[in-house]
Amino acid sequence: MKITMAHGSGGRATAELIDSIFKKAGGNPILDMMEDSAVVDGCGKIAVTTDSFVVTPLMFRGGDIGRLAVCGTVNDLLARGATPKYITTAYIIEEGADTELLDMIAQSAARTAKEAGVTIIAGDTKVIEGSGGIYINTTGVGFLDGNTDIKSSNCRVGDKLILSGTLGDHHAAILSERMDIQNDIKSDCAPLGGMVSEMMSAGVKIRAMRDVTRGGLGTVLNELCRASACGFELQEDDIPVSAAVSAFSKILGLNIMHMGNEGKLIAVVVPEDAERALQLIKSSKYGENAAIIGTVTDSGQVEVMTAIGGRRIVTELYGEGLPRIC
Amino acid sequence: MKITMAHGSGGRATAELIDSIFKKAGGNPILDMMEDSAVVDGCGKIAVTTDSFVVTPLMFRGGDIGRLAVCGTVNDLLARGATPKYITTAYIIEEGADTELLDMIAQSAARTAKEAGVTIIAGDTKVIEGSGGIYINTTGVGFLDGNTDIKSSNCRVGDKLILSGTLGDHHAAILSERMDIQNDIKSDCAPLGGMVSEMMSAGVKIRAMRDVTRGGLGTVLNELCRASACGFELQEDDIPVSAAVSAFSKILGLNIMHMGNEGKLIAVVVPEDAERALQLIKSSKYGENAAIIGTVTDSGQVEVMTAIGGRRIVTELYGEGLPRIC
Repeated sequence: MKITMAHGSGGRATAELIDSIFKKAGGNPILDMMEDSAVVDGCGKIAVTTDSFVVTPLMFRGGDIGRLAVCGTVNDLLARGATPKYITTAYIIEEGADTELLDMIAQSAARTAKEAGVTIIAGDTKVIEGSGGIYINTTGVGFLDGNTDIKSSNCRVGDKLILSGTLGDHHAAILSERMDIQNDIKSDCAPLGGMVSEMMSAGVKIRAMRDVTRGGLGTVLNELCRASACGFELQEDDIPVSAAVSAFSKILGLNIMHMGNEGKLIAVVVPEDAERALQLIKSSKYGENAAIIGTVTDSGQVEVMTAIGGRRIVTELYGEGLPRIC
Repeated sequence: MKITMAHGSGGRATAELIDSIFKKAGGNPILDMMEDSAVVDGCGKIAVTTDSFVVTPLMFRGGDIGRLAVCGTVNDLLARGATPKYITTAYIIEEGADTELLDMIAQSAARTAKEAGVTIIAGDTKVIEGSGGIYINTTGVGFLDGNTDIKSSNCRVGDKLILSGTLGDHHAAILSERMDIQNDIKSDCAPLGGMVSEMMSAGVKIRAMRDVTRGGLGTVLNELCRASACGFELQEDDIPVSAAVSAFSKILGLNIMHMGNEGKLIAVVVPEDAERALQLIKSSKYGENAAIIGTVTDSGQVEVMTAIGGRRIVTELYGEGLPRIC
């Protein structure tokens, strides 16, 4: 079945679309109430984040827009040390979209929500003219205890920087799909709750945490530099990159530091906890390639030390890295 | 300046766009932190709702997509008896959009948030190909005390149905803009916190509340019928409609019961509180035309009694009322 403008009317056709696809994929007592707002319990400090996903193609090796939309938002909550609990999913659908495709995407979002331990508690469906595209906004709500204070401005000189795995996989996977290049590169799109809860419950002193998405590691680290008035010194050889992505980026002249990721986080931790944090991440799901890649400095910039003794400054991304990467 | 794909990169160009437009329009200490998630305080029961706005045109008599996006979400929180507190705004912008227009919209959203008493605590900006369109998702978070139990399934036979003002204004305003018809009809787009807090603090026993948006009153009442296994009997003469909208709908053959609104709510209240609730709404901002328009029955359907003694059944909207009305 093809989506028509009537599916965006708010009337019977919208209700039928919701019943046949979204409720089936991710129904639960809160969502099934179909109220104007979901009412849920919660106490203490609340984390809230929002993200829209416009990735193309909608399905790609290693994931799809539904899984991506849940992971991106869940990981943003985790980055503040919050336990992700609730998520909303709002679809903007272009007329002509295939309901079978929509169904697969909604089911993937629901499966990923289950994996990440979040409940989909509210949704929305709008239809616009176009040619079958699908956009998803997800907003996440998580809870954290009053003592948790993880934020970009907390980095201190001497802190260690841990990266949870290889860089560039999502970027390379999306670009491969678009250019119709056959390779084994898959998006890293994943919810990172396992590694964060391991670190939190082990009492690792985390100063700052960020998920490394569009804009890449270079952009995120420059943002931390500004927020904390600090710098970073990275060892190039310590930065994990898969052989396939490394070759891919060299052929296309891409800077690995600006390539987007969807299942990677950086944690800035106090030096005495760094090795322990690394082992906790490495033994968690999606963390096997984690590495300590650098140290916080007072230089005010992000410097990468190369194997042959060189020093490169990494700026944030300017201009477009890869349009519609997420 | 025109929006380019680089404004969606997540790098420097995105940051400059956020600084020059969104922060300027609605900055606050929480949003300015630019973290992956906002962390806020809260306790007890939490209400959460999400809505995407795809209205066209972006500016219309009585409002714009920015004001609409805040009002729609705030009113959904109010419908559960929650006090709206936080809102997120996520923009999907088509390449070529004018930054001056975007600025006006972001400022309107910020002004409306202030009027509604909500703080914008998180945001997102994505850019897609296209021809200057703008879509906004807003997700709202509100708080309510543990005893509040306002929901669609609570209606009981004999309860009174109050409508907070005239029907059809938003629908007629949007359609007038598109058809280039000159008239004085304005969108009713408004945040309805005043009337709800008046009723709540006066202890009015509200069974159910809904904002009456796309799909119109007919659709919302049919949803209540299903949720509460009840019916409604409405007096046609009691339903407030402005003379201009009434004439407009007759000329175009529109059913007022399926016309969309963006600043109207219905409250189903216990009969003994109905008159008091009506007076509270009437004396509040945006409530001057409120009326008691009907009663909850056990008929299982929505019946409208006409002035000449007829009886009409009102179904929910099927098919498209007006594409991209909100």
